Amino acid sequence: MPAQKPSCVVLGGSGFIGTNLCRRLLASGHRVRAFGRHCRFPDKLRGVEWYQGDFSDPDSVAAAIETFDIVFHLVHGAMPQAANLAMAADVQRNVIPSITLLELCSKLGVRRVIFSSSGGTIYGCPAQIPTPEVAPTDPICAYGISKLAIEKYLTLHEHLYSLDFRVLRIANPFGPFQIPWKGQGFIAAAVSRALSGQPIEIWGDGSVVRDFVFVDDVVDAFEAAMTDTSNTRVFNIGTGEGRSLTDVIAAIERLLDVKLSIKWARGRSLDIPISVLAIDRAREVLEWEPKTSFETGLAMTMEWTRQNRSEIDKLYR
Amino acid sequence: MPAQKPSCVVLGGSGFIGTNLCRRLLASGHRVRAFGRHCRFPDKLRGVEWYQGDFSDPDSVAAAIETFDIVFHLVHGAMPQAANLAMAADVQRNVIPSITLLELCSKLGVRRVIFSSSGGTIYGCPAQIPTPEVAPTDPICAYGISKLAIEKYLTLHEHLYSLDFRVLRIANPFGPFQIPWKGQGFIAAAVSRALSGQPIEIWGDGSVVRDFVFVDDVVDAFEAAMTDTSNTRVFNIGTGEGRSLTDVIAAIERLLDVKLSIKWARGRSLDIPISVLAIDRAREVLEWEPKTSFETGLAMTMEWTRQNRSEIDKLYR
Repeated sequence: MPAQKPSCVVLGGSGFIGTNLCRRLLASGHRVRAFGRHCRFPDKLRGVEWYQGDFSDPDSVAAAIETFDIVFHLVHGAMPQAANLAMAADVQRNVIPSITLLELCSKLGVRRVIFSSSGGTIYGCPAQIPTPEVAPTDPICAYGISKLAIEKYLTLHEHLYSLDFRVLRIANPFGPFQIPWKGQGFIAAAVSRALSGQPIEIWGDGSVVRDFVFVDDVVDAFEAAMTDTSNTRVFNIGTGEGRSLTDVIAAIERLLDVKLSIKWARGRSLDIPISVLAIDRAREVLEWEPKTSFETGLAMTMEWTRQNRSEIDKLYR
Repeated sequence: MPAQKPSCVVLGGSGFIGTNLCRRLLASGHRVRAFGRHCRFPDKLRGVEWYQGDFSDPDSVAAAIETFDIVFHLVHGAMPQAANLAMAADVQRNVIPSITLLELCSKLGVRRVIFSSSGGTIYGCPAQIPTPEVAPTDPICAYGISKLAIEKYLTLHEHLYSLDFRVLRIANPFGPFQIPWKGQGFIAAAVSRALSGQPIEIWGDGSVVRDFVFVDDVVDAFEAAMTDTSNTRVFNIGTGEGRSLTDVIAAIERLLDVKLSIKWARGRSLDIPISVLAIDRAREVLEWEPKTSFETGLAMTMEWTRQNRSEIDKLYR
């Protein structure tokens, strides 16, 4: 009989990356529990145990993670723009419950915590492109500062209590289950609007460059981080390649064979001009690499959006 | 008539560095207000406006800083060891009110915020000794993480709202007005116990090395930071030289011409073996340097402790 696979609880399991991760872990034969405030796609999480709760409630978190081997921490209670407008609330909702989570993980004997950090914001305006993990971390948004602080508390909990962890600094993920709400993901919004014939909103002049990584590849990285036995703790997860928003629009236009209408808006103060991650470390240590070409990922995202339009529309309301 | 000097409010103005700073600023001709929970040495702050309040109360902080030009932020609501035992509370008491403070400073038109950070903990276990400001910041105690987070929010508030600031990463300060409570300062405790003939408690084997900087020199650095016009924001403030706890004991023995009794205790997990700051940047940019030799500073600390023993004893109760 083969050794039993570790049981996995995904905090933020009903979110974009969380839903993809839960489905994959289940398919790989793990016992999987998803923890979150509400389940957006219950049909798509069949076989996953759903545990409803608020990340700010320690009792609820403790009950959810108890007896599980691996904790995936994918919760962030605010989008980047919102965090800037309410920085203290962002700390209150994210940093403080994360500290409590780590204390619970030590107490309950969790074997590893895998934290979803932000490769797109944690470095601020990087001097080096693509940006390696050793680059200075000077976020210019509150969201990035919270992520950085949580990374530091993970290091501290390993130092003090031998709590094992891995951090994935994820670039700009896109793909199925990303909801095209304003600000959550440029590709999700652009694809959704393109398919419904609405103009696409672009902040700034479209020259902003991002490292768009397909969510299946991100999920690969989470699986690799679960079994990694190295001494390395922090990994950039991206593609190592940059694409401007204008490039993305052009790619959608090619796929749909239409000319899209653009609504130009003022640049946002938290937008750094260019963000591309160096992924050599993940390649070498995790033996991971992104496998999905941008065009393939975009086509899959479009297909998913087409098929689930009515469900997505319901979530808007 | 000479231009009027900027008015100064010192948050944490009744603490160790705060008391020294208030006295100096007053002597230099500034209007000075000290803000804190209780005034330890009211006689020594004559001429300084005392404003009683809690740093966690935004209304109280707003009323205290309104109309002032320069805000010195020297509050930290927990000692390093205590912060580790209650990390969430440490964030709650220090990071969150600091964010609120920065918002108030922007709103009220404060000209500069000068923040007292921690050179001894912010770098964690540094690979490079003496440690420059550009070294990685990987604290191994919660106190250091809070200080780091506050530094990041300062940078962010400059980016978003043009709030001017300077950060002093202070090594291990010592001198008059440091209260010999357990854990607050090794030299204060050692001097106090030596003078009263009690054994001196040492955690570990006494080989721990620190960069002890005399408080008058630290106050010089705060004055220099107030008028600095460079583009540099973060400065190490120490001596660039390390001394072991055993060295300190030997220096006290030489001064008092006695053999001291030592009470050895187990090393603490937050004690890094060696911490010495590189101070080239402050030398070059602030044209600052420490002027007080260790022996002179120690003798002055001893003299102050002798003269104020009854007052210090009262504070113990």
